[in-house]
Amino acid sequence: MTVVACIGGGQLGRMLGLAGIPLGLDFRFLDPAPDAPAQAVGELIVAAYDDECALRRLAAGSDVVTYEFENVPADAARSLGAIPTAAALELTQDRLEEKRLFRRLGIPTPEFESPPTPALAKTRRLGYDGKGQRLISTLDELADDELAEELVSFRRELSILAVRSTTGETAFYPLVENVHRDGILRSSHAPAADAPTAAAQDSARRLLDALDYAGVLALELFETEDGRLLANEVAPRVHNSGHWTIEGADTSQFENHLRAILGLPLGSTETPEPVAMLNLIGDAPSLEQLLEVPGAHVHLYGKAPRPGRKLGHVTLVGDAVAALDELAALV
Amino acid sequence: MTVVACIGGGQLGRMLGLAGIPLGLDFRFLDPAPDAPAQAVGELIVAAYDDECALRRLAAGSDVVTYEFENVPADAARSLGAIPTAAALELTQDRLEEKRLFRRLGIPTPEFESPPTPALAKTRRLGYDGKGQRLISTLDELADDELAEELVSFRRELSILAVRSTTGETAFYPLVENVHRDGILRSSHAPAADAPTAAAQDSARRLLDALDYAGVLALELFETEDGRLLANEVAPRVHNSGHWTIEGADTSQFENHLRAILGLPLGSTETPEPVAMLNLIGDAPSLEQLLEVPGAHVHLYGKAPRPGRKLGHVTLVGDAVAALDELAALV
Repeated sequence: MTVVACIGGGQLGRMLGLAGIPLGLDFRFLDPAPDAPAQAVGELIVAAYDDECALRRLAAGSDVVTYEFENVPADAARSLGAIPTAAALELTQDRLEEKRLFRRLGIPTPEFESPPTPALAKTRRLGYDGKGQRLISTLDELADDELAEELVSFRRELSILAVRSTTGETAFYPLVENVHRDGILRSSHAPAADAPTAAAQDSARRLLDALDYAGVLALELFETEDGRLLANEVAPRVHNSGHWTIEGADTSQFENHLRAILGLPLGSTETPEPVAMLNLIGDAPSLEQLLEVPGAHVHLYGKAPRPGRKLGHVTLVGDAVAALDELAALV
Repeated sequence: MTVVACIGGGQLGRMLGLAGIPLGLDFRFLDPAPDAPAQAVGELIVAAYDDECALRRLAAGSDVVTYEFENVPADAARSLGAIPTAAALELTQDRLEEKRLFRRLGIPTPEFESPPTPALAKTRRLGYDGKGQRLISTLDELADDELAEELVSFRRELSILAVRSTTGETAFYPLVENVHRDGILRSSHAPAADAPTAAAQDSARRLLDALDYAGVLALELFETEDGRLLANEVAPRVHNSGHWTIEGADTSQFENHLRAILGLPLGSTETPEPVAMLNLIGDAPSLEQLLEVPGAHVHLYGKAPRPGRKLGHVTLVGDAVAALDELAALV
């Protein structure tokens, strides 16, 4: 039996488990929350992410260690030889280092070294879902733990999911268009229309190669009003903007992440039809209401409602995308 | 949290769990085997099927009780108010009663009251996968616990999966063509070409109505050389010949079974492309070999190899069906 150990037991861990159990994989998770969503699909070790005993127990007898949460201590990932590497994790934990890497690799990104003002101040660490961002009128206002970024007037937000196996085999999903609300992903639409696929794949490939990466990597991009494609941030893990792959692609991001970190052949990323994914945030309609929407594929994470919390998502594929407005009216 | 309790924790339970966890359902299983496949997706109570304490523990606090195995004692299902009903279970546990029901409902079935000889003798109870069958030359050879059945010269074996909700809502999957080897299902192909859909649906509907059924029901059929459609047997549960629905249909048989027993709206049974499902029996190639087959969707049940044992299955959808021979050569 192949055992996958995962630092973090949130919904991403839960969906990794759901994708991996059919492959005969067994799962073990480490999470501080005793009701972590992944407890439904494997053993849950309840402990802090930096609890050394718990980390040892997590890894004991496992065949591979991965993580599903960005803010895991890089040292924990390093001590267990996690895939993707601790180096990838560390890099994406510091927005300034991330930007410098983009720059070093020739990946276009909003100006951050001497941005025009007013600019966007972002905390270097632990920001997510739009938290830790504010507008500043001069660079003097910048705190030590912040970086300043050029305000970008963008036409749309895109993301690309790439996957690279430990064997080097690489695949890309089609570009996704993402719609945010209050800084949280509200919906994803794939494949994005008139997508700058070659440029996005080029940027993602530079990252995969530079990091000697294995697993799924998500690169968030801005397409500016004047048609430039700028890297916003990178996540060294499966990503909310790839949840549509469960029903919409031949192989889901979750299955391909597992195949990649285990050195197995990657599955096809083909996406035969248009797909839309809508997040359930803060509160969710009843299961019955959701299932009444024709073609709705419902994914609930087993989490208690709380403002701003991602409780689940719903995917619509092909002709069913027509029901998106009906669905959106519910949530 | 809605809790589904399931008598039996085999691969059918495992796949029910995999389909139900995304709906936010929690699972609990009762199975005598401590390594039962369903332990990956819920709490497993290890006990005999007729252990009254264990049955009470299984049902305690659950929202619905179902079963995934035909040879569960009907009394156990009855005591817990299982859905489908114990009556449906009981009926399908006795081949003679099953045949009599077919006859009573006007569902054509091979002659069994005074069949021509030589005939097929079948045990009335506990037969599955071709076990408990033998050829007899006169009816005198028939044992008390057997029934005799007309030998049918059939062109192909078909099955139909029907689902009926506690609300009465009913849906059918397209007919499946099944290929057996040594009495065990080897492969299923859907939708079956030139299928006698109306006749099959009519038979299945008579059963659903007569049993006031809720859940998925599988009806196995023979299509004879002279074009008749004869009912062979019925299974009051999700069925091996419906495993292809996980990737091949808009909603899988597992999800629809859960929706049906919980009184939720049924999902579409549409099957947009041809699908083939191949069982992995007795021994399985490595995961790597299976994943190298283009388009292969691999389902392993976490069971140790043993001759004649169903260890997993692989599904191919659409153009990928072309790889069936390549896949079949491996297994």
